Amino acid sequence: MRNTSDIAQRRALARATDDPDYRVRRAELIKTAAAVFRRKGYSAAKLQDIAAAAGLDRASVYYYVSGKEELYKEVVAEAVRDNVAMVERLRSTEASAPSKLSAFVEGLMASYERHYPYLYVYVQEDMTHMSGDTAWTREMRSLSRRFDTAVRDIIQKGLDDGSLAAPVEDARLLANAVIGMCNWSHRWFQPGGSFTAADVGRLFSALLLQGLARSQ
Amino acid sequence: MRNTSDIAQRRALARATDDPDYRVRRAELIKTAAAVFRRKGYSAAKLQDIAAAAGLDRASVYYYVSGKEELYKEVVAEAVRDNVAMVERLRSTEASAPSKLSAFVEGLMASYERHYPYLYVYVQEDMTHMSGDTAWTREMRSLSRRFDTAVRDIIQKGLDDGSLAAPVEDARLLANAVIGMCNWSHRWFQPGGSFTAADVGRLFSALLLQGLARSQ
Repeated sequence: MRNTSDIAQRRALARATDDPDYRVRRAELIKTAAAVFRRKGYSAAKLQDIAAAAGLDRASVYYYVSGKEELYKEVVAEAVRDNVAMVERLRSTEASAPSKLSAFVEGLMASYERHYPYLYVYVQEDMTHMSGDTAWTREMRSLSRRFDTAVRDIIQKGLDDGSLAAPVEDARLLANAVIGMCNWSHRWFQPGGSFTAADVGRLFSALLLQGLARSQ
Repeated sequence: MRNTSDIAQRRALARATDDPDYRVRRAELIKTAAAVFRRKGYSAAKLQDIAAAAGLDRASVYYYVSGKEELYKEVVAEAVRDNVAMVERLRSTEASAPSKLSAFVEGLMASYERHYPYLYVYVQEDMTHMSGDTAWTREMRSLSRRFDTAVRDIIQKGLDDGSLAAPVEDARLLANAVIGMCNWSHRWFQPGGSFTAADVGRLFSALLLQGLARSQ
């Protein structure tokens, strides 16, 4: 039986040597943690549950991560990296701004469903309250900026080429409107309800592009 | 100099007897607290600042409220009661659903500006995390339900009479979209920036009714 600080030392050493096997096994553990968070909810999930699902004993889990908090941060970071990649890829395509915006809204809602509930935990708890200056907070802030910038760029392009129009053509305000409609879903969306994320995404994208007022 | 429990007793007594003078002075103190929260921010505002602004000594403030937390709760409750009254009044008018929806979005954004920052503190911190079962949490939950119901009713009426249309005509989802776009402003809107709440409200209501896609 090893003691905790011994394990912490071995963990630090394994990371410093950047062993590919270690990296692969750590990545697998993070994937498993995501699945357990989804199944049990974030608060209810115990490190023991994650260890069991990964086929590891509790001590071995500590060889890869310092605890549940680190698993949560890694799981959230992967989800946010994917979302940034999604919107930056959309920005770079030749599609029209309206179709990019639709794909973005549908993609973001699908991501909230796929990464339920921990991505919503992040939206509610950490996104604005990121205290401290750690590698994680620095990466998350940088990802947030890239995400917002890409959404704004897509909207700006549409305003410039005339495929999008609004009474105030401010890409920042319009991006806040689009992102806000989707992000507020952290207060009400639950997978397995009357509507899937795909239903919500399609409805929201239609609403943002066509509006609610019946055209005469 | 009176001690704290003595003051708490006198406060309980004054409330129990429901003295109109006491009620008026307490209401004035709450108005003053709102102004101080606006001027100094919620976290920075000290009970002493509120006492000074109200022309009371600190001990006298305790005759009306148990502390800053109670002032915050009262100030938020007044703002939320006003918002519920606003949307219920709109529901009861004969205006068209699109014009009610515009007035609602503009009214809500104006309220966030008028009640900055404490109404946003509530949206971020308390609205979903209301633990405990107190008179305040019960009232706030009931106000929340009335607010959501009134927005849904306005939308449902528009869907029924054909003045509003959407690919999925679900008033609950559509209300979530409308409210979400506005409420997400707690993460980005600040009075005194490039846009007033009136600018944002007009833009958001145009966006929700007409959409972003340039009509051909």
